[in-house]
Amino acid sequence: MDSPSPGGGELERLMQLLARIPGLGPRSARRAALHLMRKREALLVPLAEALTRAAANVRRCGVCGNLDSTDPCAICRDARRDTSILCVVEDVADLWALERAGAYRGRYHVLGGTLSALDGVNPDDLAIPSLLARARSPEVHEVILATNATVEGQTTAHYIADRLIGNEVKVTALAHGMPMGGELDYLDDGTLGWAIKSRHPVS
Amino acid sequence: MDSPSPGGGELERLMQLLARIPGLGPRSARRAALHLMRKREALLVPLAEALTRAAANVRRCGVCGNLDSTDPCAICRDARRDTSILCVVEDVADLWALERAGAYRGRYHVLGGTLSALDGVNPDDLAIPSLLARARSPEVHEVILATNATVEGQTTAHYIADRLIGNEVKVTALAHGMPMGGELDYLDDGTLGWAIKSRHPVS
Repeated sequence: MDSPSPGGGELERLMQLLARIPGLGPRSARRAALHLMRKREALLVPLAEALTRAAANVRRCGVCGNLDSTDPCAICRDARRDTSILCVVEDVADLWALERAGAYRGRYHVLGGTLSALDGVNPDDLAIPSLLARARSPEVHEVILATNATVEGQTTAHYIADRLIGNEVKVTALAHGMPMGGELDYLDDGTLGWAIKSRHPVS
Repeated sequence: MDSPSPGGGELERLMQLLARIPGLGPRSARRAALHLMRKREALLVPLAEALTRAAANVRRCGVCGNLDSTDPCAICRDARRDTSILCVVEDVADLWALERAGAYRGRYHVLGGTLSALDGVNPDDLAIPSLLARARSPEVHEVILATNATVEGQTTAHYIADRLIGNEVKVTALAHGMPMGGELDYLDDGTLGWAIKSRHPVS
């Protein structure tokens, strides 16, 4: 028992795991652990249950790659959404950002990242083959490329546009208006809504 | 199913709970939730288990107020620690800070906060009665007042010193050297170690 770890092994382990959440470092993980212990019934127990339930039930949608308790996800199951438009995003966070903006009522396709020669990310590592398959469906009339306005995002968008242009489907991209170097999840809803409304065909 | 919440109810609830952790706001809670879903086996499941185990097993030490899986805590059970000195701290985070500094090998007493007329915190709302009882034990020769160098911390220390001085027990305070307005948990280990080594009697 030489120099016991603070709070015993269980609290120590909890702090180590909390410190691995993005946005929390070792110090804020300690503060978070103490806060959780203080709010045992109001926060700690519900959070443990929510994590357990999310681990058991939340999965990737087999159609679009969104995260949801059901597969297909609520968006893919929603009969009132326009099935003729696919909006291609890098990440689920970007899909959520567009949903918050409320300017889009079609379906989505989550790539799961961007192409990167440096990191060895090839088209087959992303949900690009399944996107090309979905875009070939006669039901789909338009594919909106809504990747981030970064070099990687635009490179990925160009790669996809090259594969799609010449097919029956119309390929569009989010309107300029996004700040250069900006990321979708950090835009305000107004800018995002404007960008989706003034999307333009890719020539 | 009008405008489905992102990721369904379970993910939404997880994000709401994560947003209530100090250091995480709504946006970082969304990022944290996505990160957890991506690291399901490596982080989400272990974190859920650690929280469940902490909720079930970690409790306040009945002697000193520390948090540990056992009661009394590992520090109170450690026979090699000096039982003749009590170090009085505001919070468990301060106890941990002193343990990290490694300059103190006595026992602790966690007050659970500071006196505050404004917030209606009276001596009976803190672990002050139990401290006075412990300090009356013939085994205890010294009480170190290690509250924060804030107005509230020093007010609380003065109140306790007033109750203890005149008894058999020696009352000391952390050495000056702590920056004014600073909080114990934010000091570097060197300053903390120095402050505990050059503690002085309260006159």
